[in-house]
Amino acid sequence: MGEEKTGRVVTSADVARLAGVSRATVSFALNNTQQQRVSEATRAKVLAAADQLGYVPHAAARSLRAGRSHLVLMPVAAMAIGTAVSDWIDGLQSEFEQHGYTLVLHVGRFSDPVTAARSWAEIRPAGVIVLEAENLTAQGAAILRRAGIKAVVSLASRPVDGVFTIDLDHASVGATAVEHLVARGRQTIGIIMPEERGLLAIAEPRLRGAQEVASKTAATVTALSMAYTAQSAEALADDWAERNLDAVFAFNDNYASLLLHALQNKGYLVPKDVAVVGADDLVQSSLLRPALTSVALDAPTPKQIADTLLSLIETGSAPEVRSFKPVLVHRQSS
Amino acid sequence: MGEEKTGRVVTSADVARLAGVSRATVSFALNNTQQQRVSEATRAKVLAAADQLGYVPHAAARSLRAGRSHLVLMPVAAMAIGTAVSDWIDGLQSEFEQHGYTLVLHVGRFSDPVTAARSWAEIRPAGVIVLEAENLTAQGAAILRRAGIKAVVSLASRPVDGVFTIDLDHASVGATAVEHLVARGRQTIGIIMPEERGLLAIAEPRLRGAQEVASKTAATVTALSMAYTAQSAEALADDWAERNLDAVFAFNDNYASLLLHALQNKGYLVPKDVAVVGADDLVQSSLLRPALTSVALDAPTPKQIADTLLSLIETGSAPEVRSFKPVLVHRQSS
Repeated sequence: MGEEKTGRVVTSADVARLAGVSRATVSFALNNTQQQRVSEATRAKVLAAADQLGYVPHAAARSLRAGRSHLVLMPVAAMAIGTAVSDWIDGLQSEFEQHGYTLVLHVGRFSDPVTAARSWAEIRPAGVIVLEAENLTAQGAAILRRAGIKAVVSLASRPVDGVFTIDLDHASVGATAVEHLVARGRQTIGIIMPEERGLLAIAEPRLRGAQEVASKTAATVTALSMAYTAQSAEALADDWAERNLDAVFAFNDNYASLLLHALQNKGYLVPKDVAVVGADDLVQSSLLRPALTSVALDAPTPKQIADTLLSLIETGSAPEVRSFKPVLVHRQSS
Repeated sequence: MGEEKTGRVVTSADVARLAGVSRATVSFALNNTQQQRVSEATRAKVLAAADQLGYVPHAAARSLRAGRSHLVLMPVAAMAIGTAVSDWIDGLQSEFEQHGYTLVLHVGRFSDPVTAARSWAEIRPAGVIVLEAENLTAQGAAILRRAGIKAVVSLASRPVDGVFTIDLDHASVGATAVEHLVARGRQTIGIIMPEERGLLAIAEPRLRGAQEVASKTAATVTALSMAYTAQSAEALADDWAERNLDAVFAFNDNYASLLLHALQNKGYLVPKDVAVVGADDLVQSSLLRPALTSVALDAPTPKQIADTLLSLIETGSAPEVRSFKPVLVHRQSS
């Protein structure tokens, strides 16, 4: 690369000077502005000057001129990323890159959906992908729309006005776990609610689904608060006897394996004394002794998400995407 | 809130019309532009109109006018996030929010550091935080500098020209693990190298540190490739006997616990047949049987990182931050 050694900030004016063209021509040449044509010879001259100076166009300036941004914003709790979804996020980034968009993750946490939507709107992304449906209300969607953001995709069990909703029902994860436990003859079922901020958006619908199933049977469900720490798992195991529970659905496989180990360390036999079911079918689950029963959540592929969002950005509409349902992976722990 | 029900895009012209002021006055009032004063009465009128219409200022436009962005960009491999660093990332976001900045994570992966730097530069963030030092070279730093991004903080063992480097040495993690194993009488040590994209930036210096220590003793180290899957852990355990290894340093506690379970399922006794050491001292490690020995990596607090970056943004310099060194947490597996 022919970049100069200077540390000075390089602007489009420097590129214009070196190429011997106007600053507007530099802008037209670098931004492929449809309305303004420059000759291929001029474009080549500008590109050579930009390369020589190491000039990088400013995406924000480009988005203001072109009337749109090339950022796709995905708000997500950092705690919810982990190994389970990292390949999925990588795949999503690759899909967007192929189309000239950049995916950025917003890991902020907000007091309410309106504050969240205002914060996302300020960045003026081309599109927003909402994985935690509780963070997006009709009022939040209206804020995004008024900011000119038309492409909003949400993975949720209930449609929000003005949002393209892909049906992914966390309630059915809790329902599937409890249906399985009841079918195995369990009657008193604990439901782990993680104390970590940002996970309640997933844990609450899972609890709701568990309660709905239990209400139709003789089984009872009890919500149990647990932090993702060894101390919290051990504290739950310490008091386990007085709870009279014969099963536990432990939010996901991370919490389930922590609790499984803590219960075993106290001398409980799994599944004889207590059946344990996780969710997300994480990598370690099949290797645990006993191997962990889990509820696997089928989810849209990165390409399905990206194609939907890009279609919304470019045409204002997108074809319907099928619903996603959980699948029970039965192993030895239940 | 008095927001209108319309779905139409609201611009600053609408705010100006409702408040009975010029569009420039709206901009001055909403952006607290230092150079241009508006009266408190006018500002109140503009704020009321913006609130009524549900107008959200455009951060990119604001950054162009003010000459700076309010985004802080942190490139990070999604695979590297997980539960270990999620609280840390949450804390970092909170620190920046208190100062009017928004942290966004860039999870892209790039063929080389120059491509990476150009992609970050396009977003024109106020600052960049680089956790995986291998992704930032002097040439990449120069690209950021020429794009006007002066605040770049890197956690690395070697300083990069033009970058504020906080000394955090992954090589010393591998060195600490192997020093411990050698002191416990182990001679033939496997070093797990994760196959997942994005983790080599951490795994390679850890291997280098392990090799440096081993070269000063009678011990040998052997790199072993492993994916974070049950199959890969089981395949390693299947062939374990022929490797003649009496210890393994397994990159981090996730890989270590996966391999520990796979080895135990094949009948190996830990630590009698093979000592297992992980890293990062993750939550589950103390609950495993045997409890897992781990190398804990002391790291700067979110406040230390945020204060350093904000100081660089605002003053161009920042006070030195101390070095961070690993600590061995000895448990039963070694």
